[in-house]
Amino acid sequence: MVERTRFTLAEEDIPRAWYNISADLPVPQSPALHPGTHQPLGPADLAPLFPMALIMQEVSTEREIEIPDPVRELYKQYRPSPLVRARRLEKALDTPAHIYYKYEGGSPAGSHKPNTAIPQAFYNKEEGIKRIATETGAGQWGSALAHAGAMFGIEVKVYMVRASYDQKPYRRLMMETYGASVVASPSMDTAAGRAILAEHPNSTGSLGIAISEAVEDTVMRDDTHYSLGSVLNHVMLHQTVIGLESIKQMEIAGEEPDTIIACAGGGSNFAGISFPWLGLTFRGGRKYRIIAVEPEAAPSMTRGRYAYDYGDTAKMAPMVKMYTLGHDFIPEPIHAGGLRYHGMSPQVSLLKHEGFIEARSVHQRPCFEAGIQFARTEGLIPAPESTHAIRVAIDEALAAKASGEKKVILFNLSGHGYFDMTSYQRYLEGKLEDYEYPAEEVKHALESVEA
Amino acid sequence: MVERTRFTLAEEDIPRAWYNISADLPVPQSPALHPGTHQPLGPADLAPLFPMALIMQEVSTEREIEIPDPVRELYKQYRPSPLVRARRLEKALDTPAHIYYKYEGGSPAGSHKPNTAIPQAFYNKEEGIKRIATETGAGQWGSALAHAGAMFGIEVKVYMVRASYDQKPYRRLMMETYGASVVASPSMDTAAGRAILAEHPNSTGSLGIAISEAVEDTVMRDDTHYSLGSVLNHVMLHQTVIGLESIKQMEIAGEEPDTIIACAGGGSNFAGISFPWLGLTFRGGRKYRIIAVEPEAAPSMTRGRYAYDYGDTAKMAPMVKMYTLGHDFIPEPIHAGGLRYHGMSPQVSLLKHEGFIEARSVHQRPCFEAGIQFARTEGLIPAPESTHAIRVAIDEALAAKASGEKKVILFNLSGHGYFDMTSYQRYLEGKLEDYEYPAEEVKHALESVEA
Repeated sequence: MVERTRFTLAEEDIPRAWYNISADLPVPQSPALHPGTHQPLGPADLAPLFPMALIMQEVSTEREIEIPDPVRELYKQYRPSPLVRARRLEKALDTPAHIYYKYEGGSPAGSHKPNTAIPQAFYNKEEGIKRIATETGAGQWGSALAHAGAMFGIEVKVYMVRASYDQKPYRRLMMETYGASVVASPSMDTAAGRAILAEHPNSTGSLGIAISEAVEDTVMRDDTHYSLGSVLNHVMLHQTVIGLESIKQMEIAGEEPDTIIACAGGGSNFAGISFPWLGLTFRGGRKYRIIAVEPEAAPSMTRGRYAYDYGDTAKMAPMVKMYTLGHDFIPEPIHAGGLRYHGMSPQVSLLKHEGFIEARSVHQRPCFEAGIQFARTEGLIPAPESTHAIRVAIDEALAAKASGEKKVILFNLSGHGYFDMTSYQRYLEGKLEDYEYPAEEVKHALESVEA
Repeated sequence: MVERTRFTLAEEDIPRAWYNISADLPVPQSPALHPGTHQPLGPADLAPLFPMALIMQEVSTEREIEIPDPVRELYKQYRPSPLVRARRLEKALDTPAHIYYKYEGGSPAGSHKPNTAIPQAFYNKEEGIKRIATETGAGQWGSALAHAGAMFGIEVKVYMVRASYDQKPYRRLMMETYGASVVASPSMDTAAGRAILAEHPNSTGSLGIAISEAVEDTVMRDDTHYSLGSVLNHVMLHQTVIGLESIKQMEIAGEEPDTIIACAGGGSNFAGISFPWLGLTFRGGRKYRIIAVEPEAAPSMTRGRYAYDYGDTAKMAPMVKMYTLGHDFIPEPIHAGGLRYHGMSPQVSLLKHEGFIEARSVHQRPCFEAGIQFARTEGLIPAPESTHAIRVAIDEALAAKASGEKKVILFNLSGHGYFDMTSYQRYLEGKLEDYEYPAEEVKHALESVEA
């Protein structure tokens, strides 16, 4: 019998509908609140920012939402993505565990982000929008929206967190190659950016600040909408193509995962792989152990508070109930990858709060160690974000070895690390610093959250 | 009826044998000559450089050479590679032509190069070799051998052409992440390098020089073999997995190509896509129009001489009969991509000389223009090398539009451009220089060829 390693699907197998976990949530999600009035938001409040189709998806409780044909057509540029059995890594670890990974790095932008960038650009195009403003941290999201903008002929303006803008020039160049305009955030292009720079001229920026700038850019113009690459329900929804495909592929592999792992910044690749499996559980199936892995440098779920907080620093974005470190949180610039957001997807937060998923925070040096072990066994160089998932997958495989259990582990490899080679170099040269989020900052940050 | 865009195969469809064009060549290939004696080389002459299995492949006339299981196992890291119908590009060009591309950029190293790096490392491992020395130009080959070395636990030393070493730090970092050692060539590590530096302290290097250094490194040590990423017959052989898969995929697509296009530096990705189709012709099938595209900055087939020449600058490598610009040829450092070699695969050269294939040279600015048009329609950012093939594919599709013919065009997209973003930027900013290989240099170079 042939031992298969790579479980591919044909383009006909791209899902025809996204899975909406709102249909199955055992506890209802708290509504988003207006940042000024603190009253529940209605669709009209969001209309200046998003097309109505996305606003409706944000609040929908339909279990299946059809994927429009033009979106499926563009998904074919890289979907279905492969599911791979990490046989060489298993062997190197000498573990009885079976390790599978879903690889999302084969997309044009190099990560899972196009799964939502493409439908977001599509629905904006349908509504006649000519320009979209957004923020990006490590650059994965900005690249994806730049790509999607090019596909639909929409102008894209990206506010890129200064720390990444300086560390990752190739990411910026990629966005520009797709035709997008990129500016370092905080920037002089918005009042929010100018206010930060007046107080902190050397600010390295944060996602919260960049979101404020993109939202301000949007509301100041008639032709522009805003787009967010994580956190919101409709983003989680679009990412479920990952998990839906993985269910089909694990069936072909003839195994069922015991443990499902993904890194989590705003929560979208984590939701993408895990929500369809959680849906199986909610509809009467078995329970899976599901682990969200966050960086020690931005540990919202493991150290934050579950409370209403603003989505951005300038309090222009809606308030949502989520795990948060406070909307004025700024991660240390030594943190190499993305996963920098102060908050977390409200849906992911709710599932954590209700005990359906676990969260774990990890330091970046052991993550890079895991990334290099992965590269030298499985061949692919993973994104720093994705190494967080690999670290925990390896730890779980070693725990299985210690206990002698044949666990089946599935993790999401959200992107490749081709734009992050300088971080790998700093690690290899022993220069990559590590960071433990200090108790005092935890206290300060939590005080800033309006509970 | 569903219109398919992406023609994927399962891992069972990875070819079980490489196709050896030597079995079908209508004219016998001239033997390689010893660089000192100018006598035909025997297997023993090559034994210090290569494992015997590769030497036997170099001279084999068996049509099918079985792919060893451990090699097929590693091919599964990225093979079978997709064949894609470029529907969005066709639409943008408003052409009746159907354009298909085979995408080799999904490999760990980001190009077609692992197709031969993996078997080369395997056969060396089988022969007990612990270390391999090689050269790399743009870095594609060095990355592939670094990856393959990591997979088989073989130490890899890479002599990287200085111009690329300085322009592409991320490529070097990638090789180091896989555990390879990388030095800029010309280097102080070899007599050949020191001699060049003594005369030209600011030498930007060339593939010919880097080959001399790697060969010297090899012959000075007992534990080391040499590895070449193009030009040689066994490299062309290994690359035929590309074309073999593409034949199966075009069958699934229900079309047959009229025109087959690939870029050519040493000839390996070109041979990879075209040789299996040529084999069909040689065994009684129809004739395809096959175009090798080379850069104006290193136009061996369009301006060089078909003659015996040394494979390297220091005359340490064998002499082979090929199209060559002279073994002391150094391409202008303004040339952004790979495709820098002074010569050309002897098999590709023979096929050109005998009229079975065409060659065309193109300037780099129109190539980048084509690359950006491709990125903004098909989504992928191609390697500068691959943009040469895209340029001609677009030109052919536009010619089909002008003549109203429904041509079927197949080209090989040999790699992605994630490590070449600065070249894209230079193009977008209007700073990318172009270069026409001048008549005087042609004359000088050809005089240096010992005909």
